Amino acid sequence: MNYGVVIKILGYLLLIESALMVPSLLVALHYEGFDWTSFLISILITAVVGFIMSRSFKYRENIQAKEGLAIVGSGWFLVSVFGALPFVFSGTIPSWTDAFFETVSGFTTTGATIIDNVEILPKGILFWRSFTHWIGGMGILVFTVAILPMLGIGGFQIFKVESPGPTADKIAPRVRDTAKILYTTYIAITILEILLLVLGGMSLYDTLLHTFGTVGTGGFGIKNTSLGAYDSTYIHLVIGIFMMFSGVNFSLYYSFFKGKWREVLKNEELRQYLGIIIIAVVLIALDIYTIMYDSFGLALRDSFFQTSSIITTTGYSTVDFDRWPTFSKAILFLLMFVGGCAGSTAGGIKNIRILVLLKIVKREISKIFHPRAVIPIKVDGRSISDETVAGITSFFVLYIIIFILGTIIISLEGIDFESSASAVAATLGNIGPGFRFVGPSTTYSQFSDASKLLLSLFMLLGRLELFTLIALFAPKVWKNEILPKNR
Amino acid sequence: MNYGVVIKILGYLLLIESALMVPSLLVALHYEGFDWTSFLISILITAVVGFIMSRSFKYRENIQAKEGLAIVGSGWFLVSVFGALPFVFSGTIPSWTDAFFETVSGFTTTGATIIDNVEILPKGILFWRSFTHWIGGMGILVFTVAILPMLGIGGFQIFKVESPGPTADKIAPRVRDTAKILYTTYIAITILEILLLVLGGMSLYDTLLHTFGTVGTGGFGIKNTSLGAYDSTYIHLVIGIFMMFSGVNFSLYYSFFKGKWREVLKNEELRQYLGIIIIAVVLIALDIYTIMYDSFGLALRDSFFQTSSIITTTGYSTVDFDRWPTFSKAILFLLMFVGGCAGSTAGGIKNIRILVLLKIVKREISKIFHPRAVIPIKVDGRSISDETVAGITSFFVLYIIIFILGTIIISLEGIDFESSASAVAATLGNIGPGFRFVGPSTTYSQFSDASKLLLSLFMLLGRLELFTLIALFAPKVWKNEILPKNR
Repeated sequence: MNYGVVIKILGYLLLIESALMVPSLLVALHYEGFDWTSFLISILITAVVGFIMSRSFKYRENIQAKEGLAIVGSGWFLVSVFGALPFVFSGTIPSWTDAFFETVSGFTTTGATIIDNVEILPKGILFWRSFTHWIGGMGILVFTVAILPMLGIGGFQIFKVESPGPTADKIAPRVRDTAKILYTTYIAITILEILLLVLGGMSLYDTLLHTFGTVGTGGFGIKNTSLGAYDSTYIHLVIGIFMMFSGVNFSLYYSFFKGKWREVLKNEELRQYLGIIIIAVVLIALDIYTIMYDSFGLALRDSFFQTSSIITTTGYSTVDFDRWPTFSKAILFLLMFVGGCAGSTAGGIKNIRILVLLKIVKREISKIFHPRAVIPIKVDGRSISDETVAGITSFFVLYIIIFILGTIIISLEGIDFESSASAVAATLGNIGPGFRFVGPSTTYSQFSDASKLLLSLFMLLGRLELFTLIALFAPKVWKNEILPKNR
Repeated sequence: MNYGVVIKILGYLLLIESALMVPSLLVALHYEGFDWTSFLISILITAVVGFIMSRSFKYRENIQAKEGLAIVGSGWFLVSVFGALPFVFSGTIPSWTDAFFETVSGFTTTGATIIDNVEILPKGILFWRSFTHWIGGMGILVFTVAILPMLGIGGFQIFKVESPGPTADKIAPRVRDTAKILYTTYIAITILEILLLVLGGMSLYDTLLHTFGTVGTGGFGIKNTSLGAYDSTYIHLVIGIFMMFSGVNFSLYYSFFKGKWREVLKNEELRQYLGIIIIAVVLIALDIYTIMYDSFGLALRDSFFQTSSIITTTGYSTVDFDRWPTFSKAILFLLMFVGGCAGSTAGGIKNIRILVLLKIVKREISKIFHPRAVIPIKVDGRSISDETVAGITSFFVLYIIIFILGTIIISLEGIDFESSASAVAATLGNIGPGFRFVGPSTTYSQFSDASKLLLSLFMLLGRLELFTLIALFAPKVWKNEILPKNR
């Protein structure tokens, strides 16, 4: 492990973070909030530490898998620690654990909160809290494009934007191009949503914060009843649709604008994603209409919003879906695991993996009749390598294992099974709210500090596609060159 | 599909079943119960139908995969329909659906019951009910040895008793030998448990019925409080230990008696199985001792019994474990999925599959550091083929899918999430009791007929290793020769 390059890059990361805190400082100053000093101090501390780290070493070597792992793993952790400073310094979240939980939840675009009364927070702090979602979403796109293919983690080789078959010398420019496409899309969606929400009569401040939460598929609300506070079908629909948009592989928008809309429409992952949404919306609407709604239109509206919110792992709510019948809740619970598409800001297992897993099962059934046949797994007409298939199944198995063990450990809080299981699913899948004890009308504040830290770990695990973080604990990563040669 | 041979063999199956009802008739006569006539009629009907079917066709061809599937699938169904006759005719279970559910539960060695007050049933009926467990256990052994390797389903090729590498002409004698070993073990364990229970002061009748439920890992109780009615640590321990024994790969007993005890002790599946039991027993004992028990010894005894009962998918209970804290319940819930070892009468996913899945995850982590390495999956020092690995992962994925979809559908009953999920897990894993609505102190009688039939399907799916039953629905199976040439 080359510690020099890791520390240097982490330093740059902190410098960037300190710069990203400036808008929140300006917001605080604009609204003349008491929180502006906390931002000033946080920016200074983060910048100074970042500067020292970035200057400590002079390494200029290539980053290998080990260093990539270390940078990503410690990077998200470090950024969350420093990102928590404004919460602590302003006194809005006095506990370090709570502030860390909230910041991890922000950067991982989870949206699980420990703040019981969000409406009393100063505007600068609220802005920073939601802005972490937007930054986090951006971070995930880099991670997906630049880091995961390098590490070949969890079968994520499957995510390729343009031509398949990587050749070593072409990787760097392609990554840069892809990243550019994704950023452009991300920013375009952001601007479009801002425009539409402002047109719908939402204040600019509320619009910005909700847009950050939507396109980053984060879900931090700024009202205690989340989006239930806005009694407007237009706003519910705009946010519902933009959440759905944010769960789509961003590179498909590029293909779409390049006129390849036939290719987009044929995309198997997109079809499955939209298919699941349609089925879930209809089933839930029928269920809640039968049992508790007077109007089918209203049932459909709420069902669409909640389905879109949960499958994209955003976590906004317009109603307390924890009070819905078990059938609807069970469908939402399933969606927590499905998640969005690869190459989006959504979390969860992701549709491409589910698609491949379903094809593996189908193949196994065929094999009973044709025991000697070699049947390749194909997605969008292209064969998936055995290695990628192995990566995807391992990911699924590991996801389930972490979910189960997590549920067992969290149940030590003395809460019921449904609360415990949904708290783990909602953090691991980067959703936010779960059911009962962690339902949309409550918060994570009631957990012990130990559980809060563990749930923070689940958020990071989910966000970093499990293996990135787990591989970090392999002793191998930390071997070799315990201290770098300081040239 | 060769319908002739299928119908013929199903006919023989019914003839065997009618013979297997005779002991129950004798028990009914011995206790002078009103149920003896229902057995007489059932035996006659089953025998006549069986006789006609077995004589209808004269086919003598080899059984291929298609026919194997059809025989196994329809066989378990048919035997359950006819096995339900005594319950209906005696009026003890007047509803056909209920009687079918109870019989499927018996033959699949699940032990889920719809009988609210089991203590008022006549002795012949109770005997038949428990005897179906014992027959079912025997049926599973045949199935594991003779059918699964032929179909190569779900990676079950991994279960091999003696030398690996099958050669076509050697399969038949090996199957016969293996079957013999398994039967002998099955009967030996049965006799041993009968002796020990009778020595412990249990009446012969109660002993027989509990032994059937133990070695078949079924779990039908004959008291409303299951084994809680027997206030004897000795009895709890004997049954607890014999359940654990019945979850071990039976061929290991053979190896053990052949003096290969070192091989047995090194068996990775056995080690994992025992390891999980030890960890679960200790964790649950500590949890219930801290929260609700006065004596650690008692906590340990109850924890051991329940752990052994659930992991082996038996389902007996000595206490109402549904009232245990969530942590203990969550562990038990996990054990429902783990199940026993391959080549035993236990259900669930089974330890060998879990073992391989864990190794796949471990390999994936190694691959991050050695992207080009080809690392084989080894169990007991032998490499597992890629095909078997694919079979095992497909099985796992399908198991989870059925569990999730099942939970969603069953939740339409209007019950809570924990009840719905545990009902599906407990039927799919052939356990019996779950939590809350289906806890050990309640029964499945409250479900609608549609749900009872669906839960029966889950029991069969779990028992037949999923793929056997699912492949049966492939149109391919039913194509070709729609009617056989009647020679």
